[in-house]
Amino acid sequence: MGDPVTIAIDAMGGDHGPAVTVPAALLSLSRHPDLHIVLVGDHAVIRRALFKRHDYDCTRVTVRHATQVVGMDEKPSAALRGKKDSSMRVAVQLVREGQADACVSAGNTGALMAIGRFVLRTFHGIDRPAIIAAIPTRGGHCHVLDLGANVDCNAEHLFQFAIMGAVLASAVDDIPNPRIGLLNVGEEEIKGNEQVRLAARLIQDSHFLNYAGYVEGGDIFRDAADVIVCDGFVGNIALKASEELVRMLVQFIRDAFGRNWLTRLIGALARPVLGSMRGHLDPARNNGASLLGLRGIVVKSHGSAGAASFAHAVETALREAQRDVPSVISQRISELILHN
Amino acid sequence: MGDPVTIAIDAMGGDHGPAVTVPAALLSLSRHPDLHIVLVGDHAVIRRALFKRHDYDCTRVTVRHATQVVGMDEKPSAALRGKKDSSMRVAVQLVREGQADACVSAGNTGALMAIGRFVLRTFHGIDRPAIIAAIPTRGGHCHVLDLGANVDCNAEHLFQFAIMGAVLASAVDDIPNPRIGLLNVGEEEIKGNEQVRLAARLIQDSHFLNYAGYVEGGDIFRDAADVIVCDGFVGNIALKASEELVRMLVQFIRDAFGRNWLTRLIGALARPVLGSMRGHLDPARNNGASLLGLRGIVVKSHGSAGAASFAHAVETALREAQRDVPSVISQRISELILHN
Repeated sequence: MGDPVTIAIDAMGGDHGPAVTVPAALLSLSRHPDLHIVLVGDHAVIRRALFKRHDYDCTRVTVRHATQVVGMDEKPSAALRGKKDSSMRVAVQLVREGQADACVSAGNTGALMAIGRFVLRTFHGIDRPAIIAAIPTRGGHCHVLDLGANVDCNAEHLFQFAIMGAVLASAVDDIPNPRIGLLNVGEEEIKGNEQVRLAARLIQDSHFLNYAGYVEGGDIFRDAADVIVCDGFVGNIALKASEELVRMLVQFIRDAFGRNWLTRLIGALARPVLGSMRGHLDPARNNGASLLGLRGIVVKSHGSAGAASFAHAVETALREAQRDVPSVISQRISELILHN
Repeated sequence: MGDPVTIAIDAMGGDHGPAVTVPAALLSLSRHPDLHIVLVGDHAVIRRALFKRHDYDCTRVTVRHATQVVGMDEKPSAALRGKKDSSMRVAVQLVREGQADACVSAGNTGALMAIGRFVLRTFHGIDRPAIIAAIPTRGGHCHVLDLGANVDCNAEHLFQFAIMGAVLASAVDDIPNPRIGLLNVGEEEIKGNEQVRLAARLIQDSHFLNYAGYVEGGDIFRDAADVIVCDGFVGNIALKASEELVRMLVQFIRDAFGRNWLTRLIGALARPVLGSMRGHLDPARNNGASLLGLRGIVVKSHGSAGAASFAHAVETALREAQRDVPSVISQRISELILHN
């Protein structure tokens, strides 16, 4: 058993609120004897969700009341200014105050980022947190950042992403020296833009990064690197395009099998066969995007996540806390600033 | 029957050369009575491929000898300087000289772009040609540009892409007023970068474009627009990621059905059911990327295309020639320059 880790959960966040976050919390508790959880949100609602269950260790669950909830479509600035007692804000505040080692929310991404930046602050030398998430690949998954927090990046930013991504991948996947790929275009006549070429040099010259070279769009799924670095514009487009493409293909398969009684029968036979594939692509297995560069651990779950999926996000936060990802990032970044 | 159209085919280009380009040419001829084809490349090799077939109208096929072939991995600058009698160069030259209305090549993209720019030149006001291709979506397909020719784009470039894309989609798909989407990120706190916001204003203010607003990565597959505009870096990454993701999923399905005799049996039943889906995603149905902004029609086929797929690229060129896409683009662009 390791040191106990406390995770604050924004119990009201996401499309389903406590109906998902509470069972997910209990699921994570049952798997991790060192884990303590603080459920943040409406006391009465959370208690009601907890009362339905008897199969958990109540000494490891605390409820922290918060009177407000950040809406999924609420403007980040409004959430930041107008909802100082929101479940999201209080969960982040607990990390700030040292009462929790990490926090997890399935709420509004923009609000979580704004609150994270305001309450926890970024490390010296980092302007905005970067968003990193795992994307399923042929052989497993790779971590891609930034996924949308920073639309305009210079080489220095990309270099910082490489450092932060390496620390995270190492912590989450137990890889001692993750391979870093830099996303680039492969058209023959022109090889990438200025920032990417400069970033390549910075990564190559750093003595603690395992640089795997340029990777193209298709390489994301070919296990060419453990961490793929790109600006937030490209990363966001690639992530959202990929998610929707998988949804589209699943829909096509469903439609094909749904056409008539014969195809439905074949579909019923094929379902368990294709189940393994769906397992691999299952968002539950990859849920949990981390906001890196903050002085504390903040993990964002998909808003629509179910309990198994949300529990995965909680466990991502747990692993980051066990490895103290922010401290390692801070150390690396300050070494970098000293060197320059 | 319309006016006769002559298309020059780089018969030696692509992974398979005349083994694919010649049957593809004959397939297109059989479907389009107005079509004439000039097969450019090694006389003897092309003749041999033609001799195998008797089922075509030999009055509509010409062979134009060219002594050289551009290699698939050859440097564009080397191809441009050192191979003045390559099948690719001669095919483009025929367009320049008015002996062909369009040309098609499955060869090296960078070399084709360099040769296209050098031989045909871009229209006044356009620095580099943009690459546009159709991507399969839930309801059909959408045209995305730029796919890699221009990695750094300002608002004016994106606006030009919108104009050229609209002309092409209109010609190829017979849509009178195609909806133009501008690819952007949807994170709540920040909405896109400066260039994209400026481009949105330019497109909105133009009286001849049907602006559909910002589209996110996932919208590419949701039929949110007929033409999606983005810089070549983002477009290239999104295209290559999507192509590889489809390949990965197809492989997962194949692996799942291949696991044992029972799954193979179920796979044999499922294959025809899933066939319709594969038809929709089939690259053959979407093969043919166009280089827009040149004073002539140049269509690039996938290097690995089979005959049906290559024939699709030929037919894309045919439709562009019938609608005289370069003239319409030139007219729109000069109106634009006059207005500014």
